[in-house]
Amino acid sequence: MSITKMDLRAQIQHKIDSKTKPLGALGLVETLAMQICLVQKTLEPTLIKPTIVVFAGDHGIAHEGVSAYPQEVTWQMVMNFVSGGAAINVFTKQHAMDLCVVDAGVNYDFPEGLGVVPKKIAKGTKSFLRQAAMSHDQLKQALDYGRELVSDLAEAGCNVLGFGEMGIANTTAATALICQLSGMSLESMTGRGTGLDDEQLNHKLKVLQSAFSHHGRIEEPERVLQTFGGFEIAQMVGAMLEAVQRDMVILVDGFIASAAYLVASKMDTRMARHAVFCHQSHEAGHQALLRDLNVEPLLKLDLRLGEGTGCALAFPLVESAVRFMNDMASFEQAGVSEAD
Amino acid sequence: MSITKMDLRAQIQHKIDSKTKPLGALGLVETLAMQICLVQKTLEPTLIKPTIVVFAGDHGIAHEGVSAYPQEVTWQMVMNFVSGGAAINVFTKQHAMDLCVVDAGVNYDFPEGLGVVPKKIAKGTKSFLRQAAMSHDQLKQALDYGRELVSDLAEAGCNVLGFGEMGIANTTAATALICQLSGMSLESMTGRGTGLDDEQLNHKLKVLQSAFSHHGRIEEPERVLQTFGGFEIAQMVGAMLEAVQRDMVILVDGFIASAAYLVASKMDTRMARHAVFCHQSHEAGHQALLRDLNVEPLLKLDLRLGEGTGCALAFPLVESAVRFMNDMASFEQAGVSEAD
Repeated sequence: MSITKMDLRAQIQHKIDSKTKPLGALGLVETLAMQICLVQKTLEPTLIKPTIVVFAGDHGIAHEGVSAYPQEVTWQMVMNFVSGGAAINVFTKQHAMDLCVVDAGVNYDFPEGLGVVPKKIAKGTKSFLRQAAMSHDQLKQALDYGRELVSDLAEAGCNVLGFGEMGIANTTAATALICQLSGMSLESMTGRGTGLDDEQLNHKLKVLQSAFSHHGRIEEPERVLQTFGGFEIAQMVGAMLEAVQRDMVILVDGFIASAAYLVASKMDTRMARHAVFCHQSHEAGHQALLRDLNVEPLLKLDLRLGEGTGCALAFPLVESAVRFMNDMASFEQAGVSEAD
Repeated sequence: MSITKMDLRAQIQHKIDSKTKPLGALGLVETLAMQICLVQKTLEPTLIKPTIVVFAGDHGIAHEGVSAYPQEVTWQMVMNFVSGGAAINVFTKQHAMDLCVVDAGVNYDFPEGLGVVPKKIAKGTKSFLRQAAMSHDQLKQALDYGRELVSDLAEAGCNVLGFGEMGIANTTAATALICQLSGMSLESMTGRGTGLDDEQLNHKLKVLQSAFSHHGRIEEPERVLQTFGGFEIAQMVGAMLEAVQRDMVILVDGFIASAAYLVASKMDTRMARHAVFCHQSHEAGHQALLRDLNVEPLLKLDLRLGEGTGCALAFPLVESAVRFMNDMASFEQAGVSEAD
């Protein structure tokens, strides 16, 4: 006899409520346990080969002076990831997570043998100020590459995936994606990225406004992604779509990853069931976006780094939710009285 | 040559700012790293034998019907702790933390050999409705027991301690302590504890108001603790005082632990430097209290369980802060360009 989804939800809730604690007393840990059990269709969830995939790509819009850092920081940070010295290395190692670093379209030729996964579409996108960031074929290839990568990870047994990114100027691309798809204003969504001052912030806003008056409002999510996205963002969208298909738990990082999520959720409405929002970024618009999506992030630590660091830092809470379901005693097992 | 404190702070900040990330991009993780380095007076912090101490005690005020659960749940949950089935067992095991369960004054005779640390002052406090919860001698003994316990842990090498508690009706005691010491109103601070309905909540408030009109406003923190505290709260206060003396990092859990912290901070002004606020509880007044203390908790997960669960769930972030300081590369080491 197959268990219907409604039956499963009731069974999970019953198991949660039988644990030796007041009803609901573990708050978001219980919510998370419910979600993971539903994704995995089980009362005994597992986390297998937890992996952070960091997609890196360069952006033509970087040449409009929208970032505090020069473009070469993208490839330099990719080298830092494969050498093990970046924040994401420290936090994935701490939590025994695998780290997979993908060249989705960096403006640099990485030597072979370093461990960078070669999925380069081109050496950066075009500036979206007066043209689309990528061609339709490039978009399709980026989505396919993202899907392939997750497909391979799923075949190897992985069932929980976090997504990070590296790409100088990609808060500018993400802002464009979010404003086009959500209808929120550029004024409310444009933020300081990795550390713009007031004047630079104003310039970034003007660049975005100029691009928006050129392109107008676009409805179709794939065309929005083609027009304003980066190769790392497009591959992340493809990866998220495949992860849903494969019944995986998806860990969503900060501002850029949330933009990718927004695009992916317009392409597959099942996305929300699988997505665990790990972190509310310091970036101005992220709080508004998460509110608009009606989601509660696990952490609010004022991070604004990307790389998937929010996913890695939040991962122990995901593990706690799973252990809570599997290892904590019920009232009956422990011989504890329930509420009056 | 000894390093002055100002020199040390500048050196720590320099090390933080040289890491391969935009300035301040790891938000609260950086703040936490700074704090731990200052407590340990080092640029290379360590976390040794991390331990959660759960103090359990019963409260005379429980007989006034201020809790959703019967008093015997205190001892039953202590048995659950030593059997390994409670939430705090699951989360301390996950993070390889030691767990120390202390009978500070439970209304039950625990058999020997179970692993409950015997520090019983009496089988519960008196109801503070018309008399002090404990005698002056009992208070002194409770503070001493807490100090002794931490002293022993410090001698064994432990340098980071989280404090949890179990005691039916102890949100009522904690509310009284906080309102007496902070001047905040009983109306704003009285909450649902483990799950009171509207009528029960109103009754709890009336009990507290009645006790306050009997005792009046008390200024001296030790007398406030004697009048309204529990044995588990008083031992926690003693433990926190000793932990400061021993240069330990103190992990503060939710509402009850914050009440103990408030008392302890009035007795030793160095307390704030050592305290890491791990969690903002779902309990009504906790957010207001943390705001009043001007502290930012690491987690906001709507927990309302106690037991030290907030400390255990937040511990990986404390570890991340330490690993960030020790393991992440500098710009120089990684060959990454800094901001323009």
